[in-house]
Amino acid sequence: MSTHFPQLSARLPALFERLQGHQVAVIGHSRPDGDCIGSQVALCRVLRARGIDALCVNPDPVPRRLQFLVGDTPFVRFDQLDAAGRLAVYVDCADLRRAGESVKARFPAPAGNIDHHLSNNGYGEHNYIDTAAAATGEILAGMFLDAGLEIDALTAQNLFVGIATDTGQFRFPATTGRCFEIAAELVRRGADPAVAGNELYEQETFGKLQLLQRFLASFKTECDGLVCVGLIPEGTYAETGTTPEDTEGMVDYARSIEGVQIGVLIEMRDGAIKASLRSTSPVYRMDRVAGRFNGGGHACAAGLNVKGTTLEAFRAELVAAIAAEIASVKNASA
Amino acid sequence: MSTHFPQLSARLPALFERLQGHQVAVIGHSRPDGDCIGSQVALCRVLRARGIDALCVNPDPVPRRLQFLVGDTPFVRFDQLDAAGRLAVYVDCADLRRAGESVKARFPAPAGNIDHHLSNNGYGEHNYIDTAAAATGEILAGMFLDAGLEIDALTAQNLFVGIATDTGQFRFPATTGRCFEIAAELVRRGADPAVAGNELYEQETFGKLQLLQRFLASFKTECDGLVCVGLIPEGTYAETGTTPEDTEGMVDYARSIEGVQIGVLIEMRDGAIKASLRSTSPVYRMDRVAGRFNGGGHACAAGLNVKGTTLEAFRAELVAAIAAEIASVKNASA
Repeated sequence: MSTHFPQLSARLPALFERLQGHQVAVIGHSRPDGDCIGSQVALCRVLRARGIDALCVNPDPVPRRLQFLVGDTPFVRFDQLDAAGRLAVYVDCADLRRAGESVKARFPAPAGNIDHHLSNNGYGEHNYIDTAAAATGEILAGMFLDAGLEIDALTAQNLFVGIATDTGQFRFPATTGRCFEIAAELVRRGADPAVAGNELYEQETFGKLQLLQRFLASFKTECDGLVCVGLIPEGTYAETGTTPEDTEGMVDYARSIEGVQIGVLIEMRDGAIKASLRSTSPVYRMDRVAGRFNGGGHACAAGLNVKGTTLEAFRAELVAAIAAEIASVKNASA
Repeated sequence: MSTHFPQLSARLPALFERLQGHQVAVIGHSRPDGDCIGSQVALCRVLRARGIDALCVNPDPVPRRLQFLVGDTPFVRFDQLDAAGRLAVYVDCADLRRAGESVKARFPAPAGNIDHHLSNNGYGEHNYIDTAAAATGEILAGMFLDAGLEIDALTAQNLFVGIATDTGQFRFPATTGRCFEIAAELVRRGADPAVAGNELYEQETFGKLQLLQRFLASFKTECDGLVCVGLIPEGTYAETGTTPEDTEGMVDYARSIEGVQIGVLIEMRDGAIKASLRSTSPVYRMDRVAGRFNGGGHACAAGLNVKGTTLEAFRAELVAAIAAEIASVKNASA
């Protein structure tokens, strides 16, 4: 059997030694995704199997779709945690702020820091960072396998979901042969891709598909086909029985069109506008466009909130700002 | 290294022997999908690498999105083929009719038949059928790996795409540890999940999203919410500037709704009806429902073609057949 993370795995016993005999909080980031919850639950279960009194803590609740990952693993919201005396291990947190200000204030110097984000500066006492890994779940699974630890079926499922979600179902650029190798090992230990797929992707509400249908119907391209804008006007959530959470992933439809470089979702709710911007390449700086409206984010994914305008007026303003960004990219490369 | 398909692999040399010295047509099914094209191209390349004069033949053109799979592999439409003297190997064809009547008439007794469909009756001289495999690409890849054959990067990509598409990106029920194991081997040999993902899922046309929008708008649930039916009426392709190949994957939206066990897409084009059936569990036998209309397929994915009726009349007939299937499942478990 190959060794997945030789350098990190060699140092894993040191973390276990540090934690032995202590109460431990396994901390994830706010607005948790599949890799965050999966990594928290998996590490917590492995620690508990070694007799370490660990629980999972998150500033936000576990999303409905990810609740199947928790099982009998102790999982609490930070505001319900008696944190006294606990050591902390952060997973999937690029920096301490990602766990929320109050968590950061309570656990400013964690014993462990396990992550795959490029910007992680190694803020823990024991750091296990591999930025080539597609998911924190991949690092944890690889280390557990390298160490020959027993991985129960629920732990395997959590690690599998971490890899599957952070690779966009095994297709984002970080997807390597190692991802598949580790996934195979996890399936052998009880991870169930069909159950995971069903929980993650097959439980849409009828209203969400109606919302998607209306969003798609509103698509218009701009800037010679480089931009596609979709709208969710005031009242749409009520009419379709949905909530703003149901827009998750929808902006990707606008960006997925051939030739489109920038996808935009603009929604209006209770008189306030929220926009999501996605670009196919970091050349187009969505954080810069959002910044013009006091928003922010990453190069390829940014957002903003504005008030006191109409959907159509704001749409025109935003398209103009995006056109300016495209023009500046063109000028820079000319 | 483990052996992926021990029984089939042991018989693979017999097929090579049979084909050696002959011209060969590697035939797929009409309206080809990723597993069909991927299996055709991969087998053709492996045969050519062994000095066998093979080409790929399909009754229909290679869909736009799958053209990246062909490369320098000879691939012709059946009506352009000089078929004289060629031996045939069918891949991913549950039965000869799936390749179209004229192909069937020309190659009624193929030398080879490689497939994973439940209803394949072994119509070839040499048959390589494993209905537990998630894809024909999985069988081919497994046999090539078992035999220690050289697999070039494009062949690896084709086999990978066969597995990735037929498993719905590694999440349909047939997705096993073996799928991931083989995928890992293919990535090591040059398959690129990110390139495949971009070609398969990030190059939508504007028209395709309009088609999706209309399909979603037609959704109605039946059988107490267990079934969701979506329609593509006559004229929709022309109105949205799309073709039937643009419906690929759309039926999954119908099946993905919470509580829905069976998703249905019914399209009418040039007066003929085609329906696709997908169930979340093999308990509901879509092949059995399709069989009532002379269609066929797998337990979880089947299809059928009918003529001489209207969309609404056929819709009612099909819903009745599905209701009967649901009732028989209920009775069997009662």
